[in-house]
Amino acid sequence: MKPYKLYTYFRSSAAYRVRIALNLKALAYDALPVHLLRGGGEQLADAYRAVNPSALVPALDVGDAAAIHQSLAILEYLEETQPLVPLLPRDALGRARVRALALTIACDIHPLTNLRVLKHLQGTLGISDEAKLEWYRHWTREGLAMVEAHLARDPQTGRFCHGDTPTLADCCLVPQVFNALRFNVGLAPYPTLERIHAACAELPAFLAAHPSQQPDAE
Amino acid sequence: MKPYKLYTYFRSSAAYRVRIALNLKALAYDALPVHLLRGGGEQLADAYRAVNPSALVPALDVGDAAAIHQSLAILEYLEETQPLVPLLPRDALGRARVRALALTIACDIHPLTNLRVLKHLQGTLGISDEAKLEWYRHWTREGLAMVEAHLARDPQTGRFCHGDTPTLADCCLVPQVFNALRFNVGLAPYPTLERIHAACAELPAFLAAHPSQQPDAE
Repeated sequence: MKPYKLYTYFRSSAAYRVRIALNLKALAYDALPVHLLRGGGEQLADAYRAVNPSALVPALDVGDAAAIHQSLAILEYLEETQPLVPLLPRDALGRARVRALALTIACDIHPLTNLRVLKHLQGTLGISDEAKLEWYRHWTREGLAMVEAHLARDPQTGRFCHGDTPTLADCCLVPQVFNALRFNVGLAPYPTLERIHAACAELPAFLAAHPSQQPDAE
Repeated sequence: MKPYKLYTYFRSSAAYRVRIALNLKALAYDALPVHLLRGGGEQLADAYRAVNPSALVPALDVGDAAAIHQSLAILEYLEETQPLVPLLPRDALGRARVRALALTIACDIHPLTNLRVLKHLQGTLGISDEAKLEWYRHWTREGLAMVEAHLARDPQTGRFCHGDTPTLADCCLVPQVFNALRFNVGLAPYPTLERIHAACAELPAFLAAHPSQQPDAE
């Protein structure tokens, strides 16, 4: 089989999720870096819009048809087509729990703090650097508190977000924590999440997906 | 089987998605309204936080275990446990396409325009009513343009977002269009999306899920 081609940016939190999943499933891929800042953003160029009209990374070229966009759609595709290392539990309620945790990060934190939104806040609304940072931290804290509340109350939380093996929820959690730490949001209010993050950080699949380990890292 | 209990708010776009899916699958449910504005927001009260610590609607009580939160996790759960009327195609690439369309709405439009974010923009950043409206329209237009670009270029787009029967993508599209129209975002730049919206609007499952048809409608 030809390796997957992943359109990625080292610091993209959504691309980082997919890199973790590919590594956990031991799937080879070629990284095709798309620089989100250079030249006004390579993702906005026609060449990349032909791959993904949304002009966002990641996208996964699987050889046939159009590249798959949206990180969670890519994760579900990998889960369905490469089930050997499962990243969702088998029971429907467990699967719903894992997806809900992943979506809390993907819908309730990340969209509010990603690059295009921060640019708009400064460029169009004209808010200060400090107000932008406060915005970033506010939504990160709100969202991490949600995740912590769900994790802390549920006996299904194990070494990882759901049980003792990594799931899609952990694939989303670790990049979001990376972002939080980068903007000095401390993890002390979220002890369960902090513990799980530390457990993930020991695994080679997570380490190799880290932004600093990417070919386009700066 | 006991009917599902859906924690809902008539105008919540995420709850609207779930109502459509329940109707398409002909699944009975009891609506438990959570008023997002009254008393500072009933979703923030301890009683509702015990159901969903994220303090967001919807949540689906399926009888066992904790209620399922996050609309897309609920939709996937219904799809896995009530497959008689499928809302995802059978092929992995088709499923990825439908999920990516749904996620474009759920991640790249809705989180930026929902109530808690609009409240924060006005309350904390102190922006004007007009700037808030511009924000709303900006992200709605950006996101609908993404959806249109994906729909327009792909021969798999049919009477609905994917083929000739409704899928999870249509369950997400219709509530987002409802929101767009409510804030006077015209659909003319998005002809494919407009056509699909009209096709959905003819179906009883979509009609019965409309905010105006809910027991808590105002």
